[in-house]
Amino acid sequence: MGGGKGTRPSKRIDGGKTVVGLFYEASTRTRTSFEIAAKRMSADFVSLTASASIATKGETLLDTARNLAAMRPDAIILRHNASGAPHFLAARLDCPIINAGDGSHEHPTQALLDALTIREHKGRLEGLTVAIVGDILHSRVARSNIFAMQKMGMQVRVCGPPTLLPRYVESLGVEKFLRVEQAIADVDVIMMLRIQRERMGAGLFPTLREYSKLFGLNVDRLKMARPDVLIMHPGPINRGVEISPEVADGPYSMILDQVENGLAIRMALLYLLAGGQATNN
Amino acid sequence: MGGGKGTRPSKRIDGGKTVVGLFYEASTRTRTSFEIAAKRMSADFVSLTASASIATKGETLLDTARNLAAMRPDAIILRHNASGAPHFLAARLDCPIINAGDGSHEHPTQALLDALTIREHKGRLEGLTVAIVGDILHSRVARSNIFAMQKMGMQVRVCGPPTLLPRYVESLGVEKFLRVEQAIADVDVIMMLRIQRERMGAGLFPTLREYSKLFGLNVDRLKMARPDVLIMHPGPINRGVEISPEVADGPYSMILDQVENGLAIRMALLYLLAGGQATNN
Amino acid sequence: MGGGKGTRPSKRIDGGKTVVGLFYEASTRTRTSFEIAAKRMSADFVSLTASASIATKGETLLDTARNLAAMRPDAIILRHNASGAPHFLAARLDCPIINAGDGSHEHPTQALLDALTIREHKGRLEGLTVAIVGDILHSRVARSNIFAMQKMGMQVRVCGPPTLLPRYVESLGVEKFLRVEQAIADVDVIMMLRIQRERMGAGLFPTLREYSKLFGLNVDRLKMARPDVLIMHPGPINRGVEISPEVADGPYSMILDQVENGLAIRMALLYLLAGGQATNN
Repeated sequence: MGGGKGTRPSKRIDGGKTVVGLFYEASTRTRTSFEIAAKRMSADFVSLTASASIATKGETLLDTARNLAAMRPDAIILRHNASGAPHFLAARLDCPIINAGDGSHEHPTQALLDALTIREHKGRLEGLTVAIVGDILHSRVARSNIFAMQKMGMQVRVCGPPTLLPRYVESLGVEKFLRVEQAIADVDVIMMLRIQRERMGAGLFPTLREYSKLFGLNVDRLKMARPDVLIMHPGPINRGVEISPEVADGPYSMILDQVENGLAIRMALLYLLAGGQATNN
Repeated sequence: MGGGKGTRPSKRIDGGKTVVGLFYEASTRTRTSFEIAAKRMSADFVSLTASASIATKGETLLDTARNLAAMRPDAIILRHNASGAPHFLAARLDCPIINAGDGSHEHPTQALLDALTIREHKGRLEGLTVAIVGDILHSRVARSNIFAMQKMGMQVRVCGPPTLLPRYVESLGVEKFLRVEQAIADVDVIMMLRIQRERMGAGLFPTLREYSKLFGLNVDRLKMARPDVLIMHPGPINRGVEISPEVADGPYSMILDQVENGLAIRMALLYLLAGGQATNN
Repeated sequence: MGGGKGTRPSKRIDGGKTVVGLFYEASTRTRTSFEIAAKRMSADFVSLTASASIATKGETLLDTARNLAAMRPDAIILRHNASGAPHFLAARLDCPIINAGDGSHEHPTQALLDALTIREHKGRLEGLTVAIVGDILHSRVARSNIFAMQKMGMQVRVCGPPTLLPRYVESLGVEKFLRVEQAIADVDVIMMLRIQRERMGAGLFPTLREYSKLFGLNVDRLKMARPDVLIMHPGPINRGVEISPEVADGPYSMILDQVENGLAIRMALLYLLAGGQATNN
């Protein structure tokens, strides 16, 4: 997909399919990616966002979802601030539920698109090593990637200030690093996570400047990595905080490939879940 | 329609039809229902909500609607906080205007979907008796149902605290009850209305708890009704206020059938108003 | 197009085209016009508005746009409060960028639809004279029209209170008038601009009432114009401020023709930029 090969589908899902996007948290890229994916597969996309009236009338999540399901959509894409919300609904509704990010829990399509991007550029996943750097504690991207990458035979390192690492993170099977220079040495992939400014207010680190100095990925630090390392970031990036502009826009950066592959992954997912079929053309 | 028979259309409206949803009040289920209905009929749906820029620039409703009409949509679906707004526009524009709820006045597609739901389960409308319970005064659902049901030969009872019943409500041809036990005895259909919490602030009833105790539909109260009674609610429901979870999720509840039938009614309406035609497949 | 001839296309752009609307400023008519235009041309339209999460996460405009471009849309329609934003992106992305209004700079599709409306009613543009009246200083509509009309051989007059005229406005090749009676005498077209109430707070004029009295177009003032003058306004209009209801709704008013032609212009633009093709039907 990446590198301009395009995402015009050779497969489509049946005309008349309806995909509902139910977003309780703001999202530009994920919602847009799912919306374009659905439309490219010839499905209708109906968007409900928290800025609409969801949740303003005191209706429970289950009642809202049951009501939507009664209109017989072919899939519901859910982003929710509560960890486990998609699982909760999937157990109670017939309609396929796709997790587009739930609280600090998981973001599975992100892990799939990251795996696709790595395989596309490295030819394989098995045996590779990744360093995930930043706010591991609150990151659903980190959690989904840890699970997916280990399943595909990758070694996973996590790195961040102690306040942003989960306690007992090693129990997930990952290696913990407190210094980024050590974490990124000799890995195939560096995945930088977004620092959310509101964490600073919560006392989890002193200043963005200090965070950047200790954990940010800049050109000097990148010299310690392998010459064929891939730099990834789930976006949106904070230029000059966790990643310097030179690195984000540099030759090792996979950031826009990730976005493009996200569209491909979501098209594939809708094809599989919403009952697609191959077309003859 | 209800009971999983589905709402995939055997009729469509012409490709290239455009339906505009102009929503001055927040709405999840009604807007979504119209949007899915339009898209299932192969029409385009363009949504304008109050959270967009409508009404922020001091334009009159008529000017906004005239501007939309100049883009030649095939129907405009209007929800507005002012009673009579759809009628006002329908008298001034060539474009079909569908009332999706206007102030405390009417919500005609709700009455149509309620009638369809009753007929589907009872086989007829004529000769049946319904008790509408709750905030009759502010309910456009109640008003549209009173008109529709009487036209179809049903007897209508209304019940609620005196502060939530319109003065002279009997002049609409309905019977008035102040005690819910008497209202629901021996009726074929009980329609519970949503209590809007902001009414409490306005001094129209003391507490939700008292309202629930006196007017809420729970299992004990339901025992006073006929064994084949249908329980309806336009949603979104306040669980534990006007309806208990056991009743809302119980075997008599038609709540999700109403939602599904709403989609069917709106598809039919767009087919009739936006110039549909039968397809051969 | 105007006068009910309709905007059903005889040309379409390929199925599977995606048009993204990226609106950093509120807009009803322009966004809706582009959305209906895209859908009538059989393209998908994906809308991102500032009320969604754009710009709330500190991402730069260029990063947001690069991310969207990575999803391979066929055109991005941008409205932005910063003058020059579309030009900035167009120089950096492969994807066609359509300026839907940038700050106080330009609004080129408005100028195109205005030119179409004048030509439709006058048969030509060359040799005609227009008076643009109002807040020339902040008006992107004025600026785009001054450029377009001069290119097409029209004479342009501008008129407004001195505080709302750019310094050295004559350097754009226009004639400056401080009295509206003189500006509109003997012109073929009068284009009234919207007065934005927030300018009053900025001390640029004392009251709406005084503005209206000195610069508003009413029936009395209209008598000083030619009998075949066209009255235009980009909307939304402030009835009774810059234009009286009698004039806005009167026989000389082109306001709704402008809206209808806006749809046609945007369909044509998408056809040309997003790679359209003629259909056989």
